[in-house]
Amino acid sequence: MTEKTLKVGVVLGSDSDLKIMSGCIKTLDAYGVPCELRIISAHRTPAAAAEFAKNAKSNGFGAIIAAAGKAAHLAGALAANTTLPVIAVPVKASALEGLDALLSSVQMPKGVPVATVAIDGGDNAALLAIQILAVSDSRLADLLEAEKERMAREVEAKDASANELLKKVMENR
Amino acid sequence: MTEKTLKVGVVLGSDSDLKIMSGCIKTLDAYGVPCELRIISAHRTPAAAAEFAKNAKSNGFGAIIAAAGKAAHLAGALAANTTLPVIAVPVKASALEGLDALLSSVQMPKGVPVATVAIDGGDNAALLAIQILAVSDSRLADLLEAEKERMAREVEAKDASANELLKKVMENR
Amino acid sequence: MTEKTLKVGVVLGSDSDLKIMSGCIKTLDAYGVPCELRIISAHRTPAAAAEFAKNAKSNGFGAIIAAAGKAAHLAGALAANTTLPVIAVPVKASALEGLDALLSSVQMPKGVPVATVAIDGGDNAALLAIQILAVSDSRLADLLEAEKERMAREVEAKDASANELLKKVMENR
Amino acid sequence: MTEKTLKVGVVLGSDSDLKIMSGCIKTLDAYGVPCELRIISAHRTPAAAAEFAKNAKSNGFGAIIAAAGKAAHLAGALAANTTLPVIAVPVKASALEGLDALLSSVQMPKGVPVATVAIDGGDNAALLAIQILAVSDSRLADLLEAEKERMAREVEAKDASANELLKKVMENR
Amino acid sequence: MTEKTLKVGVVLGSDSDLKIMSGCIKTLDAYGVPCELRIISAHRTPAAAAEFAKNAKSNGFGAIIAAAGKAAHLAGALAANTTLPVIAVPVKASALEGLDALLSSVQMPKGVPVATVAIDGGDNAALLAIQILAVSDSRLADLLEAEKERMAREVEAKDASANELLKKVMENR
Amino acid sequence: MTEKTLKVGVVLGSDSDLKIMSGCIKTLDAYGVPCELRIISAHRTPAAAAEFAKNAKSNGFGAIIAAAGKAAHLAGALAANTTLPVIAVPVKASALEGLDALLSSVQMPKGVPVATVAIDGGDNAALLAIQILAVSDSRLADLLEAEKERMAREVEAKDASANELLKKVMENR
Amino acid sequence: MTEKTLKVGVVLGSDSDLKIMSGCIKTLDAYGVPCELRIISAHRTPAAAAEFAKNAKSNGFGAIIAAAGKAAHLAGALAANTTLPVIAVPVKASALEGLDALLSSVQMPKGVPVATVAIDGGDNAALLAIQILAVSDSRLADLLEAEKERMAREVEAKDASANELLKKVMENR
Amino acid sequence: MTEKTLKVGVVLGSDSDLKIMSGCIKTLDAYGVPCELRIISAHRTPAAAAEFAKNAKSNGFGAIIAAAGKAAHLAGALAANTTLPVIAVPVKASALEGLDALLSSVQMPKGVPVATVAIDGGDNAALLAIQILAVSDSRLADLLEAEKERMAREVEAKDASANELLKKVMENR
Repeated sequence: MTEKTLKVGVVLGSDSDLKIMSGCIKTLDAYGVPCELRIISAHRTPAAAAEFAKNAKSNGFGAIIAAAGKAAHLAGALAANTTLPVIAVPVKASALEGLDALLSSVQMPKGVPVATVAIDGGDNAALLAIQILAVSDSRLADLLEAEKERMAREVEAKDASANELLKKVMENR
Repeated sequence: MTEKTLKVGVVLGSDSDLKIMSGCIKTLDAYGVPCELRIISAHRTPAAAAEFAKNAKSNGFGAIIAAAGKAAHLAGALAANTTLPVIAVPVKASALEGLDALLSSVQMPKGVPVATVAIDGGDNAALLAIQILAVSDSRLADLLEAEKERMAREVEAKDASANELLKKVMENR
Repeated sequence: MTEKTLKVGVVLGSDSDLKIMSGCIKTLDAYGVPCELRIISAHRTPAAAAEFAKNAKSNGFGAIIAAAGKAAHLAGALAANTTLPVIAVPVKASALEGLDALLSSVQMPKGVPVATVAIDGGDNAALLAIQILAVSDSRLADLLEAEKERMAREVEAKDASANELLKKVMENR
Repeated sequence: MTEKTLKVGVVLGSDSDLKIMSGCIKTLDAYGVPCELRIISAHRTPAAAAEFAKNAKSNGFGAIIAAAGKAAHLAGALAANTTLPVIAVPVKASALEGLDALLSSVQMPKGVPVATVAIDGGDNAALLAIQILAVSDSRLADLLEAEKERMAREVEAKDASANELLKKVMENR
Repeated sequence: MTEKTLKVGVVLGSDSDLKIMSGCIKTLDAYGVPCELRIISAHRTPAAAAEFAKNAKSNGFGAIIAAAGKAAHLAGALAANTTLPVIAVPVKASALEGLDALLSSVQMPKGVPVATVAIDGGDNAALLAIQILAVSDSRLADLLEAEKERMAREVEAKDASANELLKKVMENR
Repeated sequence: MTEKTLKVGVVLGSDSDLKIMSGCIKTLDAYGVPCELRIISAHRTPAAAAEFAKNAKSNGFGAIIAAAGKAAHLAGALAANTTLPVIAVPVKASALEGLDALLSSVQMPKGVPVATVAIDGGDNAALLAIQILAVSDSRLADLLEAEKERMAREVEAKDASANELLKKVMENR
Repeated sequence: MTEKTLKVGVVLGSDSDLKIMSGCIKTLDAYGVPCELRIISAHRTPAAAAEFAKNAKSNGFGAIIAAAGKAAHLAGALAANTTLPVIAVPVKASALEGLDALLSSVQMPKGVPVATVAIDGGDNAALLAIQILAVSDSRLADLLEAEKERMAREVEAKDASANELLKKVMENR
Repeated sequence: MTEKTLKVGVVLGSDSDLKIMSGCIKTLDAYGVPCELRIISAHRTPAAAAEFAKNAKSNGFGAIIAAAGKAAHLAGALAANTTLPVIAVPVKASALEGLDALLSSVQMPKGVPVATVAIDGGDNAALLAIQILAVSDSRLADLLEAEKERMAREVEAKDASANELLKKVMENR
């Protein structure tokens, strides 16, 4: 039963990315998706990146999430060594508002795709990984549907109370 | 056997995007992945977009690829209505070099991810869709591995003849 | 008499946008324009977005203001379902300084325009909506003229005291 | 009966913008909206800009469309002198891909909104102007609804023949 | 003797720009250049802008400095109404890091130049105005030369003590 | 009589910039402003740049125009060595649409201003130089006023024939 | 004698980069620097990239030049596996004007520098490599000095004939 | 024995850049590379810049690091006067996120390369300088290899404890 055993690898280019990625890890956990956290640098431990990616499939991973900032090569370095789907989370670092990490992640050459989500979009990376696993895992598919419903209900609840928000704004004048 | 029947939907925001996406369609075909081509506009036929996305899973799709330019909302509009993985191909239109389509595609809010590939990256969108299906389809996984090998061999062959290229450059001085 | 009854819909993609949009709501109120506040997400509650937009005209709306950040599809999703004028307020979110929301809002394809104002420009969105209603509402037109005068007087008053500002700068040396 | 007489002013910063704006003029004409074409430069004939804008309302205009490139001040210069809705069409000139004109048009200060459409989006500017007039002109509102239907049908027709497009792509391999 | 009487007009689009422009005013004062401070908005008091610019030459101004943010039209609006040199200071406002104001200021069309300095570059605007006046004012020219010397000495003094800075860095390890 | 003898130096970073700057030279000539053309590279002949700038004032120059592309340091290198007004023309080269040259020209540090005009704005650089000389040269001031009038007349003439342009557009449908 | 034997590796991410890099190769040859051309893809042949870089020093290389476009990881992938200086040439590809390749190359994380030159700056990459070798190779140092002289003479020659260029411009009016 | 005596010049455009560059100085010191700190402004003390660069080689320097913000000309001004490798550190100043300094540094014209590192990348500039010296200095080469190993070990240690980090994230939910 592959559905139970496929893991998602969450690879951080630096442990300083942990904070922005904690939502990612918690989301995977909330869906009961086994997650393995790795700190691997495309530039400081390139061999570990290659090795992790090459063996990811046989080690039971179904998808890999890579978070990195600046010249974010991590997702690309992993994708170069696996045919598993690799999801990139461009991390906003000290300059350029994350545009550098976004372009470094998304503009991959023909033949080696990387699935890029929003800058600092760790939570969505988890959801995307779960969507990928859910293609062949009906339990996850059902959970995603339920969560989609829940999110809609949440927005609807806020919408239902918009009138009160409106009053609050008016009283604040 | 889901492996044989999962389709990939290729949705174009306009038939003018067909040219940039022909490589996408051919790649899917080369892997034997059934592909359905749709012309659906997030802004002109929004109901068709919602309907297609809502029924995609039950209609046998495993992933959806959406190509659009400018304020590229198509992938997001589809993702809003399905839990299937949705892949965005930002298309370079007449101005801003495709940056508008890229940001409109990738910067999705929490809860509704879109897997974005490079500007005009239709071929990679196909490969990413195949990688997603291959998580539970060993035939595709094997083909991807073989193709990865073939690409490497192709580069290596060019590398092997680099010496001749070098000479050609020198003679051209 | 349509002049008295036309409402403006203020739609927020998230209740977190309320703060940046409170000036919008207050401006509409100051002109006596009835305003309805909605929390509708193009991606979480797309059906609500379509439904609101489709019925907006028959429900007595004359214009719609939509505020959203990042891949800001809300205004476009509404415009896809109505022929009422839709005004977009691109909201500056955590990265890219609001450029993503601006381009996602303004670069709409041929056939479905969105009237985009400045990043975080909620107040101007309200004024634009009022200008639109004022085309056929002489009361609003008169108020706009009066406000234009008042703004000019305000700047002129500051200009008249510029000499004192100059002195203050000099004394601060 | 204001519905029949309200005109739309189409103001070009330069006659070189005529080509990009011909679709705008034709669209207005197709809807039976009387259009007045003016060549007025915010920088070369600023007095004409101010005068046109100041008198636009009393001269029977319901909305103004301004097209300009580079440091596109024309829409702002008109908006400074009228309370009519002013629509800006940022024109792509020789450098910066139209980003300069877009930012110069859309980033207006509080108190003086400009409704900005896409770079080179003359057709949409016309549609937006018609939407504005249609708030109080049921003939135009009906036409817009019909056109929205027609556009949807057009896309649907293309969608219906997508299968043939798919075959064509395959045969071209 | 024109040299003594030529004034520099410092025009702010808003009194909120005063802080960023205080260095500009102080610099003019330090050179003994008479300065007139005005609060004029290109969009709120356009007639005042036109009037000020038209009469600037006959009112004894030799150059005009205009500071504005966002869609910064002020310098252009003044330049449209005078043949005096107009210097633009693009002001960094809440979004886009001042890029909007820079492009709105510098990308002026053929025939109406604006001399643009750096974002928030009020001090340099003053120096540029003084350089312009100094073309025919030898007192100012001498002062500029002296200041250029002083600035060089200041940097040289810092350079001379760089060794101590180096030590301080080392001790801080 | 300084008015007759002040020259404008037009310095090109490369003779390939001549084409974009021919309008600049012709404009100066049309106003009877003596112009000296120099090919000086901030990076290949830095000593010539320093020497030209240092002696520019004593050699009878009243202003300097510098045109360069990419990392456009030429204007800054000249401004570092003179207190004359230095005008930068950022030249659009093969990549980045001239944004690199613009930022390299305009973002000068405190103490050393450069008056930057639009990308490829050679004609405006000439006009700005003439405006600077005209501060103390009534002949030039009169010519500038006349040219401003002529430009206005030219636009007005086009405006007067706008009706015919409108017809032409309609017939082209 | 290391001076004679140190080679420069020129690594192309794709043979399509050869054209933009032919000047690089010719420059190295003109200085008598032995050059080895390789076609290695960071994403298609990552193991070859790692292996080449790891052995580069022992194989007699003194510096490596890497040219790649889009998400240009090649230089970074090489730098991750060697302590030799690695020079990146960001290549302008079909979209984004080379900004993606520039940011992907230059924004390297702490610990693994890449020396980045201009977009499409292959010639300068060669010169930089030669400058690096010249630190310990007096023959190259002398050649660089001579070339610097020659370039200056070349500009000076053009400068000397600037007067004729000026005349040509005038006659073309 | 040149290996012992080659120095690295660290030139700051302003002493305010010292803080961002302290890591650069400390890194050089940690490798035992003699470093000379200079405060030289390309625009305030251009002659000092030229003189320093011209004599750098004969004064025993092997490489120069230049840090500057905004229109960062310092590295280019030095490179114009030496054939030594010049490394640029673009410094993030108050606006534009350092993009101005990056483009001003990296987009150098043919013939005069500058080796640019990341925005605020002082530490990497030091490492690059050391790599350059290490081409002919085996002591430095060995240290670089050792440091590369140490960095890898450091990341590996963090990777080894990733499981604990994972737990910490989970407990924080």
